[in-house]
Amino acid sequence: MYSFMNDYSEGAHPRILEMLMKYNFEQNDGYGEDIHCAKAKEYIKRFVQKDDVDIHFIPGGTQTNLLVISSFLRPHQCVISADTGHISVHETGAIEATGHKVVTAPSVNGKLTPDAIQEVLDYHANEHMVQPKMVYISNSTELGTIYTKEELTAIHNICKNKDLILYLDGARIGSALTCKLNDMQLKDIAELTDVFYIGGTKNGALYGEALVICREDLKKDFRYLIKQRGALLAKGFILGIQFEALFQDNLYFELAANANMMAEKVAMIIKEHGYSFYVPPCTNMIFPILPNKLLDELSKEFKYLIETKMDEERTVIRLVTSWATPHEAITQLEKFFMRQARQGDGARQGDGSSV
Amino acid sequence: MYSFMNDYSEGAHPRILEMLMKYNFEQNDGYGEDIHCAKAKEYIKRFVQKDDVDIHFIPGGTQTNLLVISSFLRPHQCVISADTGHISVHETGAIEATGHKVVTAPSVNGKLTPDAIQEVLDYHANEHMVQPKMVYISNSTELGTIYTKEELTAIHNICKNKDLILYLDGARIGSALTCKLNDMQLKDIAELTDVFYIGGTKNGALYGEALVICREDLKKDFRYLIKQRGALLAKGFILGIQFEALFQDNLYFELAANANMMAEKVAMIIKEHGYSFYVPPCTNMIFPILPNKLLDELSKEFKYLIETKMDEERTVIRLVTSWATPHEAITQLEKFFMRQARQGDGARQGDGSSV
Amino acid sequence: MYSFMNDYSEGAHPRILEMLMKYNFEQNDGYGEDIHCAKAKEYIKRFVQKDDVDIHFIPGGTQTNLLVISSFLRPHQCVISADTGHISVHETGAIEATGHKVVTAPSVNGKLTPDAIQEVLDYHANEHMVQPKMVYISNSTELGTIYTKEELTAIHNICKNKDLILYLDGARIGSALTCKLNDMQLKDIAELTDVFYIGGTKNGALYGEALVICREDLKKDFRYLIKQRGALLAKGFILGIQFEALFQDNLYFELAANANMMAEKVAMIIKEHGYSFYVPPCTNMIFPILPNKLLDELSKEFKYLIETKMDEERTVIRLVTSWATPHEAITQLEKFFMRQARQGDGARQGDGSSV
Amino acid sequence: MYSFMNDYSEGAHPRILEMLMKYNFEQNDGYGEDIHCAKAKEYIKRFVQKDDVDIHFIPGGTQTNLLVISSFLRPHQCVISADTGHISVHETGAIEATGHKVVTAPSVNGKLTPDAIQEVLDYHANEHMVQPKMVYISNSTELGTIYTKEELTAIHNICKNKDLILYLDGARIGSALTCKLNDMQLKDIAELTDVFYIGGTKNGALYGEALVICREDLKKDFRYLIKQRGALLAKGFILGIQFEALFQDNLYFELAANANMMAEKVAMIIKEHGYSFYVPPCTNMIFPILPNKLLDELSKEFKYLIETKMDEERTVIRLVTSWATPHEAITQLEKFFMRQARQGDGARQGDGSSV
Repeated sequence: MYSFMNDYSEGAHPRILEMLMKYNFEQNDGYGEDIHCAKAKEYIKRFVQKDDVDIHFIPGGTQTNLLVISSFLRPHQCVISADTGHISVHETGAIEATGHKVVTAPSVNGKLTPDAIQEVLDYHANEHMVQPKMVYISNSTELGTIYTKEELTAIHNICKNKDLILYLDGARIGSALTCKLNDMQLKDIAELTDVFYIGGTKNGALYGEALVICREDLKKDFRYLIKQRGALLAKGFILGIQFEALFQDNLYFELAANANMMAEKVAMIIKEHGYSFYVPPCTNMIFPILPNKLLDELSKEFKYLIETKMDEERTVIRLVTSWATPHEAITQLEKFFMRQARQGDGARQGDGSSV
Repeated sequence: MYSFMNDYSEGAHPRILEMLMKYNFEQNDGYGEDIHCAKAKEYIKRFVQKDDVDIHFIPGGTQTNLLVISSFLRPHQCVISADTGHISVHETGAIEATGHKVVTAPSVNGKLTPDAIQEVLDYHANEHMVQPKMVYISNSTELGTIYTKEELTAIHNICKNKDLILYLDGARIGSALTCKLNDMQLKDIAELTDVFYIGGTKNGALYGEALVICREDLKKDFRYLIKQRGALLAKGFILGIQFEALFQDNLYFELAANANMMAEKVAMIIKEHGYSFYVPPCTNMIFPILPNKLLDELSKEFKYLIETKMDEERTVIRLVTSWATPHEAITQLEKFFMRQARQGDGARQGDGSSV
Repeated sequence: MYSFMNDYSEGAHPRILEMLMKYNFEQNDGYGEDIHCAKAKEYIKRFVQKDDVDIHFIPGGTQTNLLVISSFLRPHQCVISADTGHISVHETGAIEATGHKVVTAPSVNGKLTPDAIQEVLDYHANEHMVQPKMVYISNSTELGTIYTKEELTAIHNICKNKDLILYLDGARIGSALTCKLNDMQLKDIAELTDVFYIGGTKNGALYGEALVICREDLKKDFRYLIKQRGALLAKGFILGIQFEALFQDNLYFELAANANMMAEKVAMIIKEHGYSFYVPPCTNMIFPILPNKLLDELSKEFKYLIETKMDEERTVIRLVTSWATPHEAITQLEKFFMRQARQGDGARQGDGSSV
Repeated sequence: MYSFMNDYSEGAHPRILEMLMKYNFEQNDGYGEDIHCAKAKEYIKRFVQKDDVDIHFIPGGTQTNLLVISSFLRPHQCVISADTGHISVHETGAIEATGHKVVTAPSVNGKLTPDAIQEVLDYHANEHMVQPKMVYISNSTELGTIYTKEELTAIHNICKNKDLILYLDGARIGSALTCKLNDMQLKDIAELTDVFYIGGTKNGALYGEALVICREDLKKDFRYLIKQRGALLAKGFILGIQFEALFQDNLYFELAANANMMAEKVAMIIKEHGYSFYVPPCTNMIFPILPNKLLDELSKEFKYLIETKMDEERTVIRLVTSWATPHEAITQLEKFFMRQARQGDGARQGDGSSV
């Protein structure tokens, strides 16, 4: 049964594995102080087009989030997140476990807005309440949407004016930066945020995220903090090799573009059969609204995630494609929808108003 | 320049890489709920000879330590460690960062004793002091020594009598259980401790440790805690595949035995040239006491760690072998010592009293 | 200018001061292990009508809250609070600073409901989210409302069924238990909750709260935890003497009843002049909705807190009475309203629909 | 039975109680923003002879310690304390509970030295170990000894050179600054440390400590942090009134001087009977070494604390005097020793070498 559950179901892109094989018996220094980490950092800096950034490789996303947030906030300070933000909902209180409150603000299609941030600031008026000091956004968001340059600039501006640290969770930044609606590059991200990470796990690596610290005053002693949170792996060079493979050429973005392309095809099929979407499809995660009856059938051939109930008869599901999604999976899905249409059920339940 | 710095300088044992290749395009469930983790757990249970243990795969050692200690202690409780214990000295306060004091006790060759534990208990008499509730030991220890079954049983007994949780850090448990002086197997460890981990990183894996929870009341909700500390990797199956490779047959112990054999050869060479050791050599980490002049030369050909100053003229260094140490490295080291001996300097500074 | 800002503007009830004078040169054991704490506990147990409760005296309310919540939860567990709950809004992230998320649920007039609790439980389905384990309520609530016995029993029942700890913040429990709508006594609170505190600070003490732990398995080692959070005062007997004074007879409830009576008079005056309330007035905190123009005048004679904006022309304010509120303050307020009415402005802006 | 157990056995100095009575029905703003706190701060600034310090009143000492240390350190940083330091030994891991390791250094009569600090710095060389960032000392120390100006200056200098925050726990600073060997005033403390507190609890207040932050960059947002740790009492003015009473004239130092004088008398009596001391007696805590047989008798008439076992026949005890110690207690003690001497036992066990 093919799974559209997520973008971390397969191992690593073959070129990563080849490179791990190639360097397997080379001896490397421990804890990320090796030549592969060094090279990978150089390659990433080329894309970022800034030399004065600090780059660290961290095993996973939740770990990166808790590390960044706990390192840069004083005890009384909080982070503002969209109510759909991963740190608020899906990290088992990892941020709170480091002592910091996550204050949520209403999101628009998974995106935070300057107005929502301002409202949080207005509300937190005195020392009886936590002090907002950081803004957390994801790009692409948990709903697969992306920030435009204009939107990110607006958030950048309010953060700058209000002395807030802007942190961008880039677990799926590849997908964001290669989707059709996107108007930014990695260098824009580096200019408009104080700290962000480039996700490896969800874009072809075995594991690992590349954290990029752009703001000078946030760089100090960061390796101490990585170590303290258990995120300084002895074999740091394994992370280095993977990001070397991903960024020595354009591989990282090619993989993400493939994921997006596959999602687009899936979205097309679904639209063609008359179904609409919970949010406009854009990157490699799409959220069709499908009749429950159709889902009963879909479940027999595909794995997917149930996002939320739409109404009594329809459910929002999440379909995710990746660097590894094969054409056959798309073909199989297309056949499924055509078969369902022929049987007359599915199509009639489409509401005709595809997004 | 060959490095005896540590046992995590190379990638992974080829059979692990092969297996990662083999399953690379298979789709697996996320977060460790896949068939490879399941298989790896079954294989490990065969060695442990217990079925009622819970096994979890964690990316790294410090993370495992902080996770275990913070999960099982209440806020006012502390963990007792040898003064040489990794959690006390080399984890950047990772344990304290979760809120718990590490109380140290004097060690004998890196090992904790029931008497030392009892002294800590006696001292911590009332609610103005932290309450000792866990004992942390490493096997092999940070000095490369091992616990005998008798010694571990004695610690097990005091822990049982005093209602202390016994946690064994097995970052190098392979090396411990395959060294000549050892009289235990994995099943003994599982019987005599409440929780322990089997280190992958330092014995042939790319990364990863297998945590084994033996005591029933410690098992509950543990996946929540893994997630909260950022240790629940999305691609948990990569950890599963690695431990599957290590434990489907005897590979894990073969690798460790090789590391030990190489260390034994190194120790032999050093002894033959008249030098003694800081602690009796036993596993894959040995601590020769060498003249500073000799070290000046050694540094030109080999990488190693300086452990401590012995006296004005001699220094204790740490030499570590691994599953990957090639015979040529040993030969090269032998030649070095012979050459030095011929040049007349090194040998005369040997103190003749090899341990 | 008279202040209706809060119920902690004055010192202590004279009988408390007298008793502090009386015992001033008596030597007492430190850290709450003295005869006055012992007596105060006995007196409180008489009201609670249970002998198997543990009582501890804590300097302040926020400290009590953070202490209770952090002591009884494991790291991955959270506390459910009404969105108006003090711990969620007004304690500068004190709970999160101990590592625990506060999950909020919509409140009805400041009160939590079983349905709201059930919804939180339903939502928190797996180990990627924090695990609800405690319910926090306040009685009287932050909006001055109270729980009926039926309501509290319903919450007690869901907590029991779902294995949740029920914690009641009784900063103003005196006011709750002596107001006209109340149908409970302290013994009911002790039967229906697992742990609660009896507020001293807001009902006549210089400072101090009496924490009552009802559930057997929550009692263990609690003094360690008090000490660790810095809440075990050396001169614990000063707390003991105060609660001895408050509970040796009915003083505690007399003071609270006086506060309620004064609030009732204030509410009456406001109603008589045609104004309504944000929530039905009940205890010693009332929330009239007043015209902004009237407030301009009120501010010249009285201090009060602005709660929230009602609409363009009206604001909700908070008026608080206490054990110390003098009749003159009420008279002065009455005169103010009469004067305003005569001047014709205020009265016409009353909406006629007093609650 | 008279108690020499500690200096917090009695209530408050009568002038404090009088002042609490005097202002009891005055309405004051909450949370320390009242006129009495303001006045008390002015009075303290007169003694400190600096106007640019921030002063906050905190309920207790452990709370002050955990608040200061957790507020000024980043997560990976630790505090250096003498091995006898209160934060290391007697606060139930309060500091670790906020996430920070307490690294101990050997003390000389309870005092930390620049050499001991330097050794800690030398040892903590890289990011695998916590980073020392604060030095904690007490004056007077836990052994009743004091720092001379020269000694404190030396510690100040190393802290300045190494960018360490110097924090002085002044739970008994009154006693330190009024003892005969002292050569400092409060203004010297304020010049030589970055932050310190003036203990009220152990010198005549009901409770409360005055925290003085001298260094500009440590002042920011401190009230948030006080609130978060539960240390911002609603009736902050009760603390203000007490410190107003203690510092409006010289009362604070008079009380401390009395405690010292009483201790001196006690020491004299003990010396005269031929006993020596564990550390040279100096302030209001003295540590005589007494024969166990004598202690059996002493216990029948006086309460005291056993500090440590000296040898098989002798024990070190702690005797503490205070602002409240009456002359009769001294007389009674003198009679005890004379009676024991007459009975021939006690005196002969004196070792003749009084310190």
